[in-house]
Amino acid sequence: MNRKLYTYYRSSCSYRIRIALHLMGLNFESIPVHLVKNGGHQNSDDYKKLNPKAEVPFYVDNQVSLSQSMAILFYLDEQLYSSKLFGESPNRYHRISLCEIINSGIQPLQNLKVLQELQGRFGMSEEQKISWIRDFIHRGFEAYENSVQDTAGNFSCGDTVSAPDVFLVPQVYNANRFGMDLRVFPKIQKINENCLQLEAFKRAAPENQRDAEN
Amino acid sequence: MNRKLYTYYRSSCSYRIRIALHLMGLNFESIPVHLVKNGGHQNSDDYKKLNPKAEVPFYVDNQVSLSQSMAILFYLDEQLYSSKLFGESPNRYHRISLCEIINSGIQPLQNLKVLQELQGRFGMSEEQKISWIRDFIHRGFEAYENSVQDTAGNFSCGDTVSAPDVFLVPQVYNANRFGMDLRVFPKIQKINENCLQLEAFKRAAPENQRDAEN
Repeated sequence: MNRKLYTYYRSSCSYRIRIALHLMGLNFESIPVHLVKNGGHQNSDDYKKLNPKAEVPFYVDNQVSLSQSMAILFYLDEQLYSSKLFGESPNRYHRISLCEIINSGIQPLQNLKVLQELQGRFGMSEEQKISWIRDFIHRGFEAYENSVQDTAGNFSCGDTVSAPDVFLVPQVYNANRFGMDLRVFPKIQKINENCLQLEAFKRAAPENQRDAEN
Repeated sequence: MNRKLYTYYRSSCSYRIRIALHLMGLNFESIPVHLVKNGGHQNSDDYKKLNPKAEVPFYVDNQVSLSQSMAILFYLDEQLYSSKLFGESPNRYHRISLCEIINSGIQPLQNLKVLQELQGRFGMSEEQKISWIRDFIHRGFEAYENSVQDTAGNFSCGDTVSAPDVFLVPQVYNANRFGMDLRVFPKIQKINENCLQLEAFKRAAPENQRDAEN
């Protein structure tokens, strides 16, 4: 099957889908969309004709054209991976909840668009920006660390990679970008280290994308 | 089965779960958690012992204890409603994507906690607050309106209520609270009106909860 992923190396939501595709061993064509240069290629007429929501990730194959990393992940997992990432009831719902701590609880508050708005509307300084990002990641990670107390093994849910790990690693990447000290979250730190040793996570990492910049 | 929903009448994420439970004809005990009074009852030791994430909705039955409206909704739909709200492939993934436009794209940017932070950190004025809320809802609704162009009938996906409607109606409720003119979104406006005529949506409405205030 011909699979295309529109992606940006530093987009944490794109990073999630790259991890999932590599974990599943699915071939795909990675098409970079530069979110910053010249006002953002996602806002070009060309790209908006393809994806009117003007964002990445955007996934296309012979069956579907999908925005929103959660929707793409459910599609890939249920249709092409025997639901192994989200798993079966009742753990399945605990996993979705963990994913959402990051997907709706952290990421939306520190993505590029929102940071640009905060600077434009409230004159947010660089110092205030770092503090805003760190504080929201910190609170979300507190909830995550707490929620995996009883389930974590080598990974968020036992000793097998599951959907929450796919969300966690890109969020830790962002936390590191903004200089956070993650030693207060020992489970998160350990899970992240274990994931980063796996080939799928290495191949999906921002620095290993062809649109990566220094 | 004994079902409990910890809820706040104005919490749009709680409102989603109330709609779903009523649509499914499932009995539940509604337990109000006042998010504002005395610094928020969700932050009390009593409540945090129950739900350390200190938020609503929180759903408990004999099988699961769940935070995050998306996780609760998947549980209810898959385990107790034959997946009728999210449906089957490939429409299922389009529906998840629509839900996420609201769940991760709009709601996190205009919830109580974030507005309090914007006021505390940047001295956001009342006028700036209204503008912030309206602008983010507007952008999200543009994406939603665009995404349902080809699928909408009486509801977001054809002529049957589905998961995206469960997310849309509480978000329109918020838009109305902040005086938005929704005539530029004719599909959203019509879907919302059609939903509000249904008994399940009426019973779930903020003004019909026992913790409702004037």
